[in-house]
Amino acid sequence: MRVLGVDPGIATTGFAVLDRGGSAPVPVAIGTLRTAARLPHAQRLADLAGGFREVIAEHRPEVVAAERVFFSVNVRTAMAVGQASGVILAAAAAAGIPVFDYTPTEVKLSVAGVGTAPKQQVASMVAALLRLDAPPQPADAADACALAICHLNRSGLARALAAQGASG
Amino acid sequence: MRVLGVDPGIATTGFAVLDRGGSAPVPVAIGTLRTAARLPHAQRLADLAGGFREVIAEHRPEVVAAERVFFSVNVRTAMAVGQASGVILAAAAAAGIPVFDYTPTEVKLSVAGVGTAPKQQVASMVAALLRLDAPPQPADAADACALAICHLNRSGLARALAAQGASG
Repeated sequence: MRVLGVDPGIATTGFAVLDRGGSAPVPVAIGTLRTAARLPHAQRLADLAGGFREVIAEHRPEVVAAERVFFSVNVRTAMAVGQASGVILAAAAAAGIPVFDYTPTEVKLSVAGVGTAPKQQVASMVAALLRLDAPPQPADAADACALAICHLNRSGLARALAAQGASG
Repeated sequence: MRVLGVDPGIATTGFAVLDRGGSAPVPVAIGTLRTAARLPHAQRLADLAGGFREVIAEHRPEVVAAERVFFSVNVRTAMAVGQASGVILAAAAAAGIPVFDYTPTEVKLSVAGVGTAPKQQVASMVAALLRLDAPPQPADAADACALAICHLNRSGLARALAAQGASG
């Protein structure tokens, strides 16, 4: 399975393409999409959509893992994050790729074993799990990795349970 | 000038295509784009983007008028409105159409003459200005009309001032 984790933002969107490996997920591409601050807001959103479509076309993920709508941010941030998230989700669906979403707590629990783990601890676990020398930079890319790992863990668990159910 | 006013929402997006007339704006198309509640969230956003692209392709507006990001709604609403707004703005920009945005106060002031006018009063003014028998339904469509009228008023004023400056 190939999963594309994504942490949307108008200025910087983190993405991570990971394959399910034998014992650990295998990083295929980790990076960011950036839009130019000098451009009109709507053009930045269009550029973000275009960049994300290119990532999909290049790496052909089977699923997209995104953060579930959350409530702890302020309204101004929520609107901007919502706009970026909207174009990302629409681009994934338009490409026929199912989107799974996870809460921040689910991601932290899955990656670091603790639902309240600080961001730095999650980033360190991402580096360890992907056998990287250091956590991916910037934080948006590390967050995208964590989302993709969370999805691989969850779907691996579901598969194991299904197999156990079939054999038991 | 042909302007496309839009009031984005994931379930219902209002739109209004208006032409600048001699003494009053002329309605070309007023309606809504709806997405199916049974579909996955990301698919609804993709369908919204597709529907909006069809409106653009059919009516070929020169500008899009949208509501400026606002702060008085709650975070959950802001995120959902942001997602819908993001795909709408990105679709407009991808089609090469400039987007102008107006605050709710600017729209009310321009359409009803009072920045604090209640929604019903704005809707009644929309009906009067467009020479309709009744305010457009649902409210999303009336709001889209108000945005388009606001843009026509503003750009008409700017044109008049520019002409006065040139002749004065």
